[in-house]
Amino acid sequence: MVYLNGNFIAKNKASISVMDRGFLFGDGVYEVIPVYNGKIFRLKAHLKRLQKSLDSVKIPNPHTKSEWLDIFNQLLSHAKTDDQSIYFQITRGVDTQRKHSFESLTPTVYIETNPLIPKPKQVLEQGFRVITQPDIRWSRCDIKATSLLANTLYAQNAKEQKMEEVILHRDNIITEGATSNVFMIKDSTLYTHPTGVNILSGITRDLAMESAQACGLTINESTFTLNKLLNADEVWISSSTREVMPIIQIDGRTVNSGKVGQYWECVYEHYQHLKEASE
Amino acid sequence: MVYLNGNFIAKNKASISVMDRGFLFGDGVYEVIPVYNGKIFRLKAHLKRLQKSLDSVKIPNPHTKSEWLDIFNQLLSHAKTDDQSIYFQITRGVDTQRKHSFESLTPTVYIETNPLIPKPKQVLEQGFRVITQPDIRWSRCDIKATSLLANTLYAQNAKEQKMEEVILHRDNIITEGATSNVFMIKDSTLYTHPTGVNILSGITRDLAMESAQACGLTINESTFTLNKLLNADEVWISSSTREVMPIIQIDGRTVNSGKVGQYWECVYEHYQHLKEASE
Repeated sequence: MVYLNGNFIAKNKASISVMDRGFLFGDGVYEVIPVYNGKIFRLKAHLKRLQKSLDSVKIPNPHTKSEWLDIFNQLLSHAKTDDQSIYFQITRGVDTQRKHSFESLTPTVYIETNPLIPKPKQVLEQGFRVITQPDIRWSRCDIKATSLLANTLYAQNAKEQKMEEVILHRDNIITEGATSNVFMIKDSTLYTHPTGVNILSGITRDLAMESAQACGLTINESTFTLNKLLNADEVWISSSTREVMPIIQIDGRTVNSGKVGQYWECVYEHYQHLKEASE
Repeated sequence: MVYLNGNFIAKNKASISVMDRGFLFGDGVYEVIPVYNGKIFRLKAHLKRLQKSLDSVKIPNPHTKSEWLDIFNQLLSHAKTDDQSIYFQITRGVDTQRKHSFESLTPTVYIETNPLIPKPKQVLEQGFRVITQPDIRWSRCDIKATSLLANTLYAQNAKEQKMEEVILHRDNIITEGATSNVFMIKDSTLYTHPTGVNILSGITRDLAMESAQACGLTINESTFTLNKLLNADEVWISSSTREVMPIIQIDGRTVNSGKVGQYWECVYEHYQHLKEASE
């Protein structure tokens, strides 16, 4: 069961017009929200970021917060397990002819939920491997847009090389991962690229920093180079569905001792408490 | 009447799955080919560029040249006028779940044709106005991809300011227009950004250079700055549907005398001959 423009329907029956600007131009934005024990995690923060994305591309928000919540809850009532991820996408809508500029259209809303199965701690504790590549994406990565061709090519490259993620660098500065934010720890300080047009302001990024601070790390939102990353004490990536994930190898080079670090262990536990304390 | 995955159907009946990666990720490529007097203009060049785009994003070409031609001709047989533009889009296809990486899927093929009404010479001779903006697009603008959100925002900005186009500059170098290539003429030499990852290798760009050479201009495919553009003798933009269009004002500043230049007049005539001599 999925949601499409007011209707709750079977996924294989959900279709849109070829004139949908999401199909023709990648002209849309999206969000992914985790649901733990049937409770939507950080809904307010996700809807705030959605509004920012919508405003940036001049698509009107088709729903109020309570309308979104109502739709999500109706979809979740059909879910078989309590841990889910909600994917929702808003495109500019269906035009009568293909042209780059746009009129005032009725936005298309598509929502699906999928079982969310966080990796067990013993799997996470083995650590993950990543590669790095130049960041070829556009200069508005703060917008969570559906024009994602670059990101799909990175993800495919990672998959083919059996890697968890591709970490991106622009002018030798680490920006973020293709589908995650990136953190490095050096001498009890956590570094991560500051928010702005080059990275997505991740909700989990904020939670990771909150957890890191609780674990005694000093937080420094400033840029760092690929070389600094390779010489870090610990490296993590974060996303709503991955949570905070420890990285033990970058481009075939071992991070520190090649073992998951002590700060990650602490942050993992703290993050689990945040999830349980979810509104 | 449009074409969708083997079927010739009414446009308002043409729909795709929400799981189409064109809708979810802007994961597709496209082409636009003009048709003059019922003859498809430069089909071979467009299919060659299509293949390059497909190869770059690892989507298999679903048709041979003769199959494409057969589909185009069937669609054109329903067209009411002899001058048309063919829009065709190939996306990676419909997946069973949303994930950035991809499997081997059956590509989605959508094609429509629309009446093409080139502007009369007396309208073109009045010249057009443009604005400039920083180029925020990704670093693979040589791929004619459907992840076009940046381009739609430029086009909307142009429309709101009643401008023909937005000319883009990256690190102060003119790259191209949001939906066109850009040329400047200075001292009987035509300058245009060399092909590579920062511009689309336009079919009309090649024809414009061919015409310019026939009109006595020296061709210099090299980069130039915004300041050079503002001090040009003539400025043109080109695209398959616009052909070669003279620009007389940039960011409110007049190009040369503010009148359409002599080389444009010559190139216009030469281009019309190329169209008539079309295979």
